[in-house]
Amino acid sequence: MFISFEGIDGSGKSTQARLLVAALREAGHDVVHTREPGGSAGAEEIRSLVLEGDPDRWSAETEILLFTAARRDHLEKTIRPALADGKIVICDRFADSTRVFQGVTRGDLQDKVNRLHEEMIGIEPDLTLLFDMDPEIGLKRAKGRQTSEERFEDFGQGFQEKCRAAFLKLAQSHDRFTIIDAGRDIEIVAKDVLALVTARLAS
Amino acid sequence: MFISFEGIDGSGKSTQARLLVAALREAGHDVVHTREPGGSAGAEEIRSLVLEGDPDRWSAETEILLFTAARRDHLEKTIRPALADGKIVICDRFADSTRVFQGVTRGDLQDKVNRLHEEMIGIEPDLTLLFDMDPEIGLKRAKGRQTSEERFEDFGQGFQEKCRAAFLKLAQSHDRFTIIDAGRDIEIVAKDVLALVTARLAS
Repeated sequence: MFISFEGIDGSGKSTQARLLVAALREAGHDVVHTREPGGSAGAEEIRSLVLEGDPDRWSAETEILLFTAARRDHLEKTIRPALADGKIVICDRFADSTRVFQGVTRGDLQDKVNRLHEEMIGIEPDLTLLFDMDPEIGLKRAKGRQTSEERFEDFGQGFQEKCRAAFLKLAQSHDRFTIIDAGRDIEIVAKDVLALVTARLAS
Repeated sequence: MFISFEGIDGSGKSTQARLLVAALREAGHDVVHTREPGGSAGAEEIRSLVLEGDPDRWSAETEILLFTAARRDHLEKTIRPALADGKIVICDRFADSTRVFQGVTRGDLQDKVNRLHEEMIGIEPDLTLLFDMDPEIGLKRAKGRQTSEERFEDFGQGFQEKCRAAFLKLAQSHDRFTIIDAGRDIEIVAKDVLALVTARLAS
């Protein structure tokens, strides 16, 4: 089973992914916890190119290619082998992030993103959890972290608002999405997520 | 005018590009001399990812995406602005290298390369000079250099032989190609190249 966690910056999805992975392992499941961009040695090297530096360092088109390159490496080296071994893969961001962060924020590149995905990636998660959050609060939380990976946060709040709207629109058009209200307490969200995934694993 | 120099490793095309650029500048032309992968700040960072390290570091599919990402950045930041200013652009390798090095060496990925090129790049050179060379001699010359950029040379002679054949096949199917016998003395090749380009500029 392949589960992706999606949402704007500061939505708490990475924390929730960690908590879910710990709970599933506690329950005896074999889980691979991974992330994008990254999740394989090569893709982690591409990660610093896209997440660090000035916002105008790359055009949206070049970003689509770099994120898809990282995804292809991640898929070959980490995701496909884990799924072939019958493991649960929990992935912090996947192709929906490219559909949103590159597809709608700087002109409409959604068709380009989708054609590239079809050509080079192909796979979709079985379940996608969208951590929905007020962009103002999310951005404040994200900017409070000690990290050099602030390139997308530096695009500002208007950018994050476009992303939130695009994530919600995507969620409405694909059955694999479940929207999680990420504005609540961490423990309450974690309990919801675990119940949801446990039910899905049993079905 | 946009001119690309193509050929297998060690074919002498980089030396010939330098000599042509010097001769054209001497004749008063405004020339931008650039190269791939690279030719812009971002693309040069991608260059080290693809040219250094073990041959199996990336699959051919991931390479196609990385080379196309570098090419898109190069096109936006260097090639298009130079052509818009009416300059001559001399580029050491361009999309034909991806058609050959990624398109035919590890399975037939030619259609994938071409679809990605159409989607994200679009432009072709006005003139492509193919420096044709015996792969055994070329590889010996290439391996004699002091450089860490040996990833493709490390694929070995069989790989370079496939590349030579694929370059010659490409040249037969596109009018923009001229094949140069690169096995001759440097000065003789340089004289041929200059005469060829000068005639084209005057036409």
